[in-house]
Amino acid sequence: MSQQIIFTNQVEHALAMAVAEGKPNRVFVLTDENTQRLVLPQLNIDATPITIAAGDSHKGLDSLQQVWQALQQGGATRQSVLINLGGGVVTDLGGFAAATFKRGIRFVNVPTTLLCAVDAAVGGKTGINYGGLKNEIGAFAEASHVIISTRFLDTLPPEEFKSGFAEMVKHALLSDEREFNSLLEIDFKNLDLEALLSRLQASVTVKQRIVNEDPHEHGLRRALNLGHTVGHAFESHAMAHGKTIAHGFAVAWGLVAEGVLSHMLLKWDSTALQRLARFVRDNYGAYHITCDDYDMLLNFMHHDKKSRQGEIDCTLLSQAGQPRVGMTIDDSDMKTALDIYRDLMGI
Amino acid sequence: MSQQIIFTNQVEHALAMAVAEGKPNRVFVLTDENTQRLVLPQLNIDATPITIAAGDSHKGLDSLQQVWQALQQGGATRQSVLINLGGGVVTDLGGFAAATFKRGIRFVNVPTTLLCAVDAAVGGKTGINYGGLKNEIGAFAEASHVIISTRFLDTLPPEEFKSGFAEMVKHALLSDEREFNSLLEIDFKNLDLEALLSRLQASVTVKQRIVNEDPHEHGLRRALNLGHTVGHAFESHAMAHGKTIAHGFAVAWGLVAEGVLSHMLLKWDSTALQRLARFVRDNYGAYHITCDDYDMLLNFMHHDKKSRQGEIDCTLLSQAGQPRVGMTIDDSDMKTALDIYRDLMGI
Repeated sequence: MSQQIIFTNQVEHALAMAVAEGKPNRVFVLTDENTQRLVLPQLNIDATPITIAAGDSHKGLDSLQQVWQALQQGGATRQSVLINLGGGVVTDLGGFAAATFKRGIRFVNVPTTLLCAVDAAVGGKTGINYGGLKNEIGAFAEASHVIISTRFLDTLPPEEFKSGFAEMVKHALLSDEREFNSLLEIDFKNLDLEALLSRLQASVTVKQRIVNEDPHEHGLRRALNLGHTVGHAFESHAMAHGKTIAHGFAVAWGLVAEGVLSHMLLKWDSTALQRLARFVRDNYGAYHITCDDYDMLLNFMHHDKKSRQGEIDCTLLSQAGQPRVGMTIDDSDMKTALDIYRDLMGI
Repeated sequence: MSQQIIFTNQVEHALAMAVAEGKPNRVFVLTDENTQRLVLPQLNIDATPITIAAGDSHKGLDSLQQVWQALQQGGATRQSVLINLGGGVVTDLGGFAAATFKRGIRFVNVPTTLLCAVDAAVGGKTGINYGGLKNEIGAFAEASHVIISTRFLDTLPPEEFKSGFAEMVKHALLSDEREFNSLLEIDFKNLDLEALLSRLQASVTVKQRIVNEDPHEHGLRRALNLGHTVGHAFESHAMAHGKTIAHGFAVAWGLVAEGVLSHMLLKWDSTALQRLARFVRDNYGAYHITCDDYDMLLNFMHHDKKSRQGEIDCTLLSQAGQPRVGMTIDDSDMKTALDIYRDLMGI
């Protein structure tokens, strides 16, 4: 892996260096309507702009074709470069467009949301939604450079920020107890964006280490699914009831439920679990379920794309920094864990 | 590179082994309308069939979506495998569909045309035509196995066979004098398909050696463009006049013109050049041009996708097996070469 991840709030300078490195003949910058309005004017970029509609519902073939056509009409060649300036939709879709245009042109990611910085922009997963399924079509392709800053985070609503922060909590749990404890001291009402940059660096480094060891998700990379088996089930459950919940919120609640399983099956420390649950309850509220919802939730888990042979598959922890991937969970254990999740969340 | 290339006329057995290797949960087989009718019934394959319309004009997004949807509806997962049974359209498009479905499922190529066996099926270039340009969208992705046989070649019209043979001549020129000389002894009217299999193995091995040294076409792989700068210009010239010429025929004529340049600029042996020209003239006829066509032809060469900074770029030979990539050709040298091409071809 030769991807360079640069942590800096001097974004223009880092971006100019990253773009120049490949001596491109043409430079393109992809934004969505939000980052075009709020972020692009903050940066002095000499590039042909391409703008797609904002939101996950536009992360599909229509927007992909829009990018391909703009590259084609703009005369892009294999010596050109695409800058993806935005959140996860922009970096996932723009990365896939670049990876497939003339069998691959170089791209640089500049994430503008916390969730994207900590998750989507790094690690080489690109793609689009297709046929009603998320990320159904895509490729493993890495940005040549990812420029991570906290400069644009104040353009985001607070909920978006918290959503990204849940992935940082997950990374801290995959790292060590100390990182976990200090991360939970954050005060969402008084953010210090400069200090956050070094926390973000620690967090992304955890992910990068895991991805480098297993780029194509054959083993260890599945550690990054911590919180996601239950989290995805909550998202699907909400969708089935006509509601949408932010991905990071679902992950936060999923971390609690899978933390319970980690305690039950691998004796993860109950003090840490209590601390996690309190932090999530105080800052994210709870996803409200009753035991009447269990059958639907388990059904989603059995059909999760991580599942093999239809079993429920989780990553659990024996302690912070000690993940166990590919744990098969019995229905009865999962139901017990959901009971305890409800207790911990006070619902 | 871990791609396995298997040369055999025991296709069922090799295919069954190749498919079983990944312990797939589901197996799909992609054909076009021709190979569905002429080849699929010859093989005993237990797989869900997917059939696309035949011909390069159907190597586009519509057919690609048809394959994606068939995989999705057939319940394909990352543990599934796609067999591409056909010519270059099927292996290019099927390879790209597989490379991008859920960020990549395994695929096995079973080329049924000589051109595909010797060229498209091996080497990891996949893709579709887009926006009027050939292979504009695609990826580098290798089949896990390529099963090369001569068993299906008698389902082809003789012109198709000759078209593929021109790429074998190119590979022989990139290999050595002996291979080149013995290849030209072929009698197209009395083909020995068993003997051809070992010639084919020698030919594919030349390509594979070059691709392994330079999978993403940064340098040496451009040796495989021998004959293609002029060949592509002939194809585009024909298209501009409402005619289509078979790719391999264009390559054969291009090899002669670039052979002339090789003699002019790198002192390639004139006896070998004469032998090549005679073989091509006797078996492929000639592409008829006059000096009034030169400006259009040179214009196509200046805009070829191999061109950098708009210069004419060719791979030339100092002798068989000694290619020089990235040679920049003056307009006046190219015009002289086209004059001599016309002399050699008797037009």
